[in-house]
Amino acid sequence: MRSWPFAKGHGTHNDFVIINDRHQMYDPTPDEVRFLCDRRAGIGGDGVLRVVRAGYVEDWDGDPDVWFMDYRNADGSVAEMCGNGVRVFARYLVEEGLAMGERIPIATRNGLLSAELLPNQWVRVEMGAVTVAEDGVRVGVGGQDWPALTVDVGNPHAVVEPGELSRLDLRTAPAWQPDTAYPHGVNIEFVSLVEPGRIAMRVFERGVGETRSCGTGTVAAAAATAYRTGDERPRWRVDVPGGTVEVELADGRASLAGPAEIVARGEVQLPDRAAA
Amino acid sequence: MRSWPFAKGHGTHNDFVIINDRHQMYDPTPDEVRFLCDRRAGIGGDGVLRVVRAGYVEDWDGDPDVWFMDYRNADGSVAEMCGNGVRVFARYLVEEGLAMGERIPIATRNGLLSAELLPNQWVRVEMGAVTVAEDGVRVGVGGQDWPALTVDVGNPHAVVEPGELSRLDLRTAPAWQPDTAYPHGVNIEFVSLVEPGRIAMRVFERGVGETRSCGTGTVAAAAATAYRTGDERPRWRVDVPGGTVEVELADGRASLAGPAEIVARGEVQLPDRAAA
Repeated sequence: MRSWPFAKGHGTHNDFVIINDRHQMYDPTPDEVRFLCDRRAGIGGDGVLRVVRAGYVEDWDGDPDVWFMDYRNADGSVAEMCGNGVRVFARYLVEEGLAMGERIPIATRNGLLSAELLPNQWVRVEMGAVTVAEDGVRVGVGGQDWPALTVDVGNPHAVVEPGELSRLDLRTAPAWQPDTAYPHGVNIEFVSLVEPGRIAMRVFERGVGETRSCGTGTVAAAAATAYRTGDERPRWRVDVPGGTVEVELADGRASLAGPAEIVARGEVQLPDRAAA
Repeated sequence: MRSWPFAKGHGTHNDFVIINDRHQMYDPTPDEVRFLCDRRAGIGGDGVLRVVRAGYVEDWDGDPDVWFMDYRNADGSVAEMCGNGVRVFARYLVEEGLAMGERIPIATRNGLLSAELLPNQWVRVEMGAVTVAEDGVRVGVGGQDWPALTVDVGNPHAVVEPGELSRLDLRTAPAWQPDTAYPHGVNIEFVSLVEPGRIAMRVFERGVGETRSCGTGTVAAAAATAYRTGDERPRWRVDVPGGTVEVELADGRASLAGPAEIVARGEVQLPDRAAA
């Protein structure tokens, strides 16, 4: 048995196991990532955020002293970016004394980002370019379907307005027409306008199912609603089952602000590698 | 923010947040139990096991130095006993140096139990009396139904043999006829004989849904299968989705042996009580 320090944190209930590995001493295998994210046999999380100096990352040619967010999905695969994950990562750096100031640079597989610490314990992070397209796709669930807007936030989204959200049964995957529309799958947001500038959203994440929050999904939902309504306000509140975030839209780019909390710190007992 | 030491452990994937409170300094409120067991906003577990000296427990009139297992369900309610929980509790006591020897006395709301540490890292625990009754109840799911045996293991169980287990859809609750049969609800085990002395089982827990393991459920499944087949062997292997346990049956009483692991230790940040 080997043990390793970990922390657990979440942003609007999108949760992560954080592995502090400043000097590239512990790079978890896919089996170990699956163990760490296992909600019953391990710690539990939607993914692992490994904290390592960017200088140890092979393809990084920027500042070697910046912290690199090595993000892994719960299934053990390597992932590029996660809006909720970056907020939790920034909160962790500050709480551990690994970073200071209001703006914290974070290296990711999508390049260098800046996380801004807000006075209300929220963290804001740049989400990059957003494009909305009206391409005639319809998304359906439970025998009904609605016209979708296709939104690109670095990953693909389809946003529909199905009316009352609480009645949707998202235990089974929604389908779309034409079925050739999203060859790599799509994240689907179900959105309802609460009042001008405020929307409620449920999300069915590609390869996962319904989740309590999805950072890029909230950006897609706000951008689609702005497009549909013609409302050009820059700030949108988005209520997801796991909490509330704020999306800012300007010049085709977005940022996402929301809560980020570190809940626990400790040591985890890793299974033997041979046995895993 | 207050913080408190915790551990996380599981027995066949029935998992628990362990709160070490030797001297009755931290008695979690129902809100705090729900927070600790929240798999995304908190630590995550099927329940909380609070470790406290029995002498601090109001209704305990036995040895005050024995460790009391104060078991709470994830919904914040107080629970009496949990076969998988006792194994994890015993493993924790040994790993923390709070108890020694092969047999560890544990005080519970069901009285004093003895946990036996086995050489293979397993723990065996007495489960008390088991009775099996053939009372004409039928349990159904997905349009089919089967005759059930009603088994009492301190809590109520209904055990059916539906054939191939992997095809059952347990996302919705099974129903029973007559519907007056279990006024307080029932845990339902779906059992299949793998070979003589070995059964596979899936379980739908009352008020919870399908789980990866249920200690009293494995005892009920073994007792029902022994009754149905007339096979009087004392030892039964039970494969559940979370692993394998061994049930011993003798003279109308049962014991349960199985794995128990402590996975992590640390400090948890508790939300402010006023805010909870």
